[in-house]
Amino acid sequence: MDPIRVISDYVRFPSVSTDPAFKQGMLGAQQYVANLLQEAGLAVEVVKTDLHPIVLARRTGPAEWPHVIIYGHYDVQPADPLALWQSPPFEPEVRDGRIYGRGAADNKGPHTVGILAVAKLLQRRPDLPLRITFLLEGEEEIGSPSFEPFLEKYRDELSEADFVLLSDTGSPSTDQIVVTTGLRGIAGFEIRLKGPRVDLHSGLHGGAVYNPIQALAEICASLHNPDGSVNIPGFYDGVARPEQWESEELKKLPLTEQSYREFLQVDSLYQQPGYTPIEATRYGPTLEFNGIGGGYQAEGSKTVIPSEVFAKVTCRLVPGQDAQNILEKISSAIRARAPKGVKVDIRVSQGNNAYHVCPPGKPNTPADQNPVLARAFAATVEAVTTAFGRPPLFLREGGSVPIIGDIKRVTGLDSLMIGLFTPDSNLHAPNENFEIAMIERGITAYEILLEKIAGSR
Amino acid sequence: MDPIRVISDYVRFPSVSTDPAFKQGMLGAQQYVANLLQEAGLAVEVVKTDLHPIVLARRTGPAEWPHVIIYGHYDVQPADPLALWQSPPFEPEVRDGRIYGRGAADNKGPHTVGILAVAKLLQRRPDLPLRITFLLEGEEEIGSPSFEPFLEKYRDELSEADFVLLSDTGSPSTDQIVVTTGLRGIAGFEIRLKGPRVDLHSGLHGGAVYNPIQALAEICASLHNPDGSVNIPGFYDGVARPEQWESEELKKLPLTEQSYREFLQVDSLYQQPGYTPIEATRYGPTLEFNGIGGGYQAEGSKTVIPSEVFAKVTCRLVPGQDAQNILEKISSAIRARAPKGVKVDIRVSQGNNAYHVCPPGKPNTPADQNPVLARAFAATVEAVTTAFGRPPLFLREGGSVPIIGDIKRVTGLDSLMIGLFTPDSNLHAPNENFEIAMIERGITAYEILLEKIAGSR
Repeated sequence: MDPIRVISDYVRFPSVSTDPAFKQGMLGAQQYVANLLQEAGLAVEVVKTDLHPIVLARRTGPAEWPHVIIYGHYDVQPADPLALWQSPPFEPEVRDGRIYGRGAADNKGPHTVGILAVAKLLQRRPDLPLRITFLLEGEEEIGSPSFEPFLEKYRDELSEADFVLLSDTGSPSTDQIVVTTGLRGIAGFEIRLKGPRVDLHSGLHGGAVYNPIQALAEICASLHNPDGSVNIPGFYDGVARPEQWESEELKKLPLTEQSYREFLQVDSLYQQPGYTPIEATRYGPTLEFNGIGGGYQAEGSKTVIPSEVFAKVTCRLVPGQDAQNILEKISSAIRARAPKGVKVDIRVSQGNNAYHVCPPGKPNTPADQNPVLARAFAATVEAVTTAFGRPPLFLREGGSVPIIGDIKRVTGLDSLMIGLFTPDSNLHAPNENFEIAMIERGITAYEILLEKIAGSR
Repeated sequence: MDPIRVISDYVRFPSVSTDPAFKQGMLGAQQYVANLLQEAGLAVEVVKTDLHPIVLARRTGPAEWPHVIIYGHYDVQPADPLALWQSPPFEPEVRDGRIYGRGAADNKGPHTVGILAVAKLLQRRPDLPLRITFLLEGEEEIGSPSFEPFLEKYRDELSEADFVLLSDTGSPSTDQIVVTTGLRGIAGFEIRLKGPRVDLHSGLHGGAVYNPIQALAEICASLHNPDGSVNIPGFYDGVARPEQWESEELKKLPLTEQSYREFLQVDSLYQQPGYTPIEATRYGPTLEFNGIGGGYQAEGSKTVIPSEVFAKVTCRLVPGQDAQNILEKISSAIRARAPKGVKVDIRVSQGNNAYHVCPPGKPNTPADQNPVLARAFAATVEAVTTAFGRPPLFLREGGSVPIIGDIKRVTGLDSLMIGLFTPDSNLHAPNENFEIAMIERGITAYEILLEKIAGSR
């Protein structure tokens, strides 16, 4: 099986989970990957959910065999704006050493790497003492609403596995792989303020009411201190500082403050005290404004005092912070800070804690409870070094993948995350692509890794 | 001529100046009002401009006759949203003692009151020793771009008049007329901030850059002091306090803080020190936010750090403040307050000073240079008292009518503004209407007023 053809054919199915118009594409992708897993030698079960089925594929075996769960998702983001694609999003094309197409990197390419590695390995070692469960969902891009109920339902079976292996994170390049050892949690909410019952003429009424935009600006401005820290009492309570080895590891990343500034095209970086800017994006908690709106926003001017305004905010959380607790602290601070004359409505949109796994063998690693995971981390170093020519870096990432926390909470399992897409892969954007060098090296690395986990190479 | 029919027929022409699709409506309204003026006994000249012509109509006479210019505009606002009109905007309908239709109150009804009063008066007094110039423009709703060039061109002729009479302001009801003695100036601008070159993923990059929404919120929050005053050095320099008689006059307005709060549906009013809330809307300067926008504003959440954000702001200015000077002070304060990491762009949209005329006979009136205007103010009290049963209030208004300042600057003429629409007239909104009682009483008042100005009743 030619990996480029296998991935290209998979990308051809427009499996956009958010849009009912793509029902056929969802079904096609699901059947395609189910077939791929069957050909690799696994027994496939399609688990119905309220929306898009989960593809569950098993290679069973004796209880003494190690058991790895490999996670991925067969759904993709919408492709628009279509006009910005150089080749059509669902007609994959190979250019400049990359497969271009929606879903190529997020996440069809990376989890196909796992499937093809398993297929090769089982062909070579039909007797391999390793239990493997593939778990491919179809709702990741819409927040995985069916995933937690699924975990609950299959809890007994899944909890018996040793750990979860996945590739849904990034690495800086095909020469430097990152193993993601943690993800930030997220606490999202919207602040809505209402002033007068309708938009008012700012000439006739200006000067007598608290302008809701002014009130919102004051509230938003109050959420940070001048030093860049978050100004919510108790926000930093229990925040775990990065370990010394984590700071050292981060310095090995091929990224300097200057190159980062140039990449972002800002004349100055800005971070809270106690972190370098690059540390702050991975190891520090944040409060970021994602959107703000109110009043007249079109061309020219319209002299109104708006009735309603809003801001959308998300905090990224680190180990030691509890999302619900943070949301309560922020809500009560905002309510206390809102001026008379405006009504405050705070709508929570999401709350998930950070996830963190400390790789065995690092300083301050907690006593290892999971020898198979410990072996897997060690094997990852060897597999990545062999396949990519350089050992991986072990870094926490700034983003949030809530399902990793769900898996930990429901089944108790930790995750080993190997980054296969790169900063140029254009995730969620036009011209998404997956590097062919990543496919080839990735299959080799997965093959070595899985064989080592089996413990009998 | 039945005034209701005359105004209804006028409203039937959809003279929307901003939309080229209404070219025929503009022409129809212009020809209709020109014809009306001719029938009233004036000599009509249609003055071409770059866009919509100005209708100039003259009743000439010996230089010793007083000379009044009556201003109005025959263009109207767009009618949308059409679905909210109870009867079609350009098919006028009489209901509940009002003529409903776009332009009925702004400004076709009010200036037709003037035309019909002149027609009646000249029929009764063909020998009336009064020069009258009507000046009806067709671009008021789009900012009067041709008006100042017109004033410059006709400066010599217009400057020889004694004053301008117009009805393009409001009164609280048909029982209480307000003569507007001043209008606030306006200084409008937009603040645009740019941070990183593109929207960033707030998980991967959050914590390392100055979020442009945060920067904008901090800048906007800095523009007021906690006591509600504007926090721009020099903003209040030279600000004229309302005269004692102006504060007394305002108390006669049928509006209390409680009824105002209930009308706006806010639990608290809010104003800068030194003014009551109702004074602040007419006699105080303001800085109001009209709009704000940036980042993700649609349903749900999208975790971005936006690249660009903006806020639209207008200040209302009082006598003693200079719009250009205020704009410069604000711009330099904002530039000084913007943090590193964001680029500031300030775009000025408009700048006009306040207008103020002190009615003769009031305390602290400057030595009267204009006996005809003095007679007109005195005649207004008598005319309004006779026609409406109660003397008018002399109040400044919070809105801005830049052409009044233009007239003063170019020709030196002051304006006498008699409010004929009411708060229920729905200007610029669906179901615009003009009260029939206002039409009848207004014609009577104008007739008495003009005859008194002629000085020979």
